[in-house]
Amino acid sequence: MNIVIAGLGVIGGSFAMGLKKAGYDAVYGIDANEQTLVKAKAQGVILEGDQDGSNLLKKADLTILCIYPHSVPGFLKAHMRDFKPGSLITDVTGVKSELAKQLSVLLPDGVDFVPGHPMAGREKMGFDFASDAVFKGANYLLTPLPNNKEENLRMIEALALALGFKRVRRISPEMHDMVIAHTSQLPHAMAVALINSDREGRQTEQFIGDSYRDLTRIAKINGGLWSELFLSNKDYLLKAIGDFNTQMRLIEDALRIEDKDALIRLFETSTARREKLDN
Amino acid sequence: MNIVIAGLGVIGGSFAMGLKKAGYDAVYGIDANEQTLVKAKAQGVILEGDQDGSNLLKKADLTILCIYPHSVPGFLKAHMRDFKPGSLITDVTGVKSELAKQLSVLLPDGVDFVPGHPMAGREKMGFDFASDAVFKGANYLLTPLPNNKEENLRMIEALALALGFKRVRRISPEMHDMVIAHTSQLPHAMAVALINSDREGRQTEQFIGDSYRDLTRIAKINGGLWSELFLSNKDYLLKAIGDFNTQMRLIEDALRIEDKDALIRLFETSTARREKLDN
Repeated sequence: MNIVIAGLGVIGGSFAMGLKKAGYDAVYGIDANEQTLVKAKAQGVILEGDQDGSNLLKKADLTILCIYPHSVPGFLKAHMRDFKPGSLITDVTGVKSELAKQLSVLLPDGVDFVPGHPMAGREKMGFDFASDAVFKGANYLLTPLPNNKEENLRMIEALALALGFKRVRRISPEMHDMVIAHTSQLPHAMAVALINSDREGRQTEQFIGDSYRDLTRIAKINGGLWSELFLSNKDYLLKAIGDFNTQMRLIEDALRIEDKDALIRLFETSTARREKLDN
Repeated sequence: MNIVIAGLGVIGGSFAMGLKKAGYDAVYGIDANEQTLVKAKAQGVILEGDQDGSNLLKKADLTILCIYPHSVPGFLKAHMRDFKPGSLITDVTGVKSELAKQLSVLLPDGVDFVPGHPMAGREKMGFDFASDAVFKGANYLLTPLPNNKEENLRMIEALALALGFKRVRRISPEMHDMVIAHTSQLPHAMAVALINSDREGRQTEQFIGDSYRDLTRIAKINGGLWSELFLSNKDYLLKAIGDFNTQMRLIEDALRIEDKDALIRLFETSTARREKLDN
């Protein structure tokens, strides 16, 4: 099976490394940056690389799109005639509804697109920071389209498990985007708001424990990518932020009227919910 | 030097372990729970334990109060006549202004109280979860009183470094409480609000990555302790939450009007600030 990875950034590069370790030999890479292709080939994680990619795509049985969300439609259009009939495409984008609506007009006949979202990443960008270690034990979500072939869904599921993911789950694009607004985008918004609400000149680094480090880790953020993810999931994210604000207000209100019992009840709820997550 | 630890919970127990490893032999423990005392003695981290403690305090050169914040004034009053003249007391409470105001009437003559805040802890409670490993590389804050003896401040600083803390910093109680509202209590409020804003029945555990785990870790919270900490730092915490809400609103506004540049600017600010924290 020939696999082509489009985009050898931190995620695409991690895929290339993981695939090599999992025993997939015929892996090829497309990237705009020639240096990246040279490095990836030198490390032995791709057999060949190409900046354009048309020739590679023509022999690809599976294409994994690891490019920016906004680039996906353009890439599909540009290579409409390159994809091999009967071949499979998947992606790694963190928001799924918007693309799902556009796909029917973007895909050539006989090519199956299985939308995916590996829930693993790093704060750093680029091939140099790629590492398949982030896949170990992580969740992988698929948001199948009505016409996806069952065998292709199973193929991506098997691939995810081979890469070290713990669990692959199928879910509708809408449900995906609603939950991901809460579990992924809202936490990033919170981390950004937390560190941006610090006042300058307090030497905050001398007053922090592990919790502040943990909560602000993702405040180091790829602005280009995350502004796209936020905007393409605007409605669900605004709803998730609204739900969060409501809960924050309950804490503020209890604090303002010094209602210790109300605070303790909120803490008991959060403790019980957090314990369930570890199960 | 005889050291008495009052309260062998997760923090007091960690002190006992750390002191033993640092070569302090004459460490004694006071705890309401007899089983805890038996365990601590069996593990060799205290020489003797006592449920009341009056006799132990009479020979203590240093008393470390690792009890709940609200219990500190009562403990000092109850043992007013037990503390040895010339001896030193320190505490580990996470909020410092309130107690500082009360201390002058609670302390016997000739006893020096150096208020302290080791910024290390665990989500679990009790001696069984004690571990001095949490002290390694952490920050330790002292909020000296006007009449503290310099030699006593230096003694606690040396002790903190011997326990593995990376940095000891002296600061006013008010400045401490203001910054700690931002770095410690606000993150706990955020974690609680985040997980409490989840909707039931979505099987959220299948949709999470490391960031959600990191941000909600401290939502597993000792409600009795943290409701006390929140309430005793009410004004600074409400201010910190207000500053956070303002930043969250900037994100919401940019999202609502789809201002990608504004989002990117907020992300650039947070990225630059987070990078500075790691220096």
